Amino acid sequence: MKNWLNSLKTSTPQEGFELAIKLSQKGVEYTQPSEEIRKKLRPKYSRDAEDLIFASQVIAINFQTVAAANNYWK
Amino acid sequence: MKNWLNSLKTSTPQEGFELAIKLSQKGVEYTQPSEEIRKKLRPKYSRDAEDLIFASQVIAINFQTVAAANNYWK
Amino acid sequence: MKNWLNSLKTSTPQEGFELAIKLSQKGVEYTQPSEEIRKKLRPKYSRDAEDLIFASQVIAINFQTVAAANNYWK
Amino acid sequence: MKNWLNSLKTSTPQEGFELAIKLSQKGVEYTQPSEEIRKKLRPKYSRDAEDLIFASQVIAINFQTVAAANNYWK
Amino acid sequence: MKNWLNSLKTSTPQEGFELAIKLSQKGVEYTQPSEEIRKKLRPKYSRDAEDLIFASQVIAINFQTVAAANNYWK
Amino acid sequence: MKNWLNSLKTSTPQEGFELAIKLSQKGVEYTQPSEEIRKKLRPKYSRDAEDLIFASQVIAINFQTVAAANNYWK
Repeated sequence: MKNWLNSLKTSTPQEGFELAIKLSQKGVEYTQPSEEIRKKLRPKYSRDAEDLIFASQVIAINFQTVAAANNYWK
Repeated sequence: MKNWLNSLKTSTPQEGFELAIKLSQKGVEYTQPSEEIRKKLRPKYSRDAEDLIFASQVIAINFQTVAAANNYWK
Repeated sequence: MKNWLNSLKTSTPQEGFELAIKLSQKGVEYTQPSEEIRKKLRPKYSRDAEDLIFASQVIAINFQTVAAANNYWK
Repeated sequence: MKNWLNSLKTSTPQEGFELAIKLSQKGVEYTQPSEEIRKKLRPKYSRDAEDLIFASQVIAINFQTVAAANNYWK
Repeated sequence: MKNWLNSLKTSTPQEGFELAIKLSQKGVEYTQPSEEIRKKLRPKYSRDAEDLIFASQVIAINFQTVAAANNYWK
Repeated sequence: MKNWLNSLKTSTPQEGFELAIKLSQKGVEYTQPSEEIRKKLRPKYSRDAEDLIFASQVIAINFQTVAAANNYWK
């Protein structure tokens, strides 16, 4: 896969949260590289409350990593 | 998305917990941006015991991050 | 919500574990504020082995936070 | 509940793992205090592979806490 | 249970990963001590993609503990 | 199993993320050593949105470990 992650540093917590979202999406992409298949799945999980909670959980876990990498933007 | 997260610092543990809730909700919002769809899902998951436990788990994970960022309000 | 969390400090590990339980319950309460609805759900999840394991997991995650806040009661 | 947790310190990693199991069980007990109901649930979850994996996960999370409290028995 | 865990120290990251697997299995064993029952469950979960992902997650959580105990083999 | 993990050190965060993916796959491999069976499972889980989210979660947990081992590539 081409270069997509050079640093865990971000300027603000919000950018860090958005990086956590990107990491979560990349975890899906590496597991299912076909964009076509992923797009087909989107209408399902994005309207399923439980899947949305699970997606938010992955983001939360990645945000822990990004926040630690940025010393919590202290 | 417009600015919504400037800092992980809060005055009290309770405000930190409430920030953890906000982070958990934002993880859902970024994944499903339509407020209309999210509102339709609410009656379901908010009356499903398992979904409530899962939601509480995401909050717990985000609270770990917020608590660390505040040095546990020591 | 009125004041319910002033500190993560507790005198003993057991009180810390009980605080972790409270945090886990609060995560549910913020998501479903109606006590009436929550009470209706209780007979179901409290007799479902999987839900009990999931509830114990949320408590475990919150206990990590409380234990760290108390320097593991060393 | 009567006194059951005075310290997270253990002599060995194995005792620490066993304490993690106890913490995981206590999370269930606080949520479902009736020993009678818990006993009825046991035959089900202890023969369900997925539930056993979930139980092992709660133990793993609690073991992280106990291990940290013991400075990893270094 | 007889002695099976004297130390979290390992010579290499790979041995650490294998210890994490052992810890994950032990979490199952303590919950279901009957080897006969566990063996019956194996054909099911080891051919269920979701269960394999869940098993890998428990290993990942235990590997965090083992890696920290070894100062990440730095 | 033959040697596959000598170090948690990587040159870049992206290589670290890819190592986290490898660790997640290895967790599955150790649990189900048959490549034939694993290949049969792939079409199912790689087209199931929930399974992809779960896979991304395991990667996120392993990435926490790898990132810590690399001092977050600071």
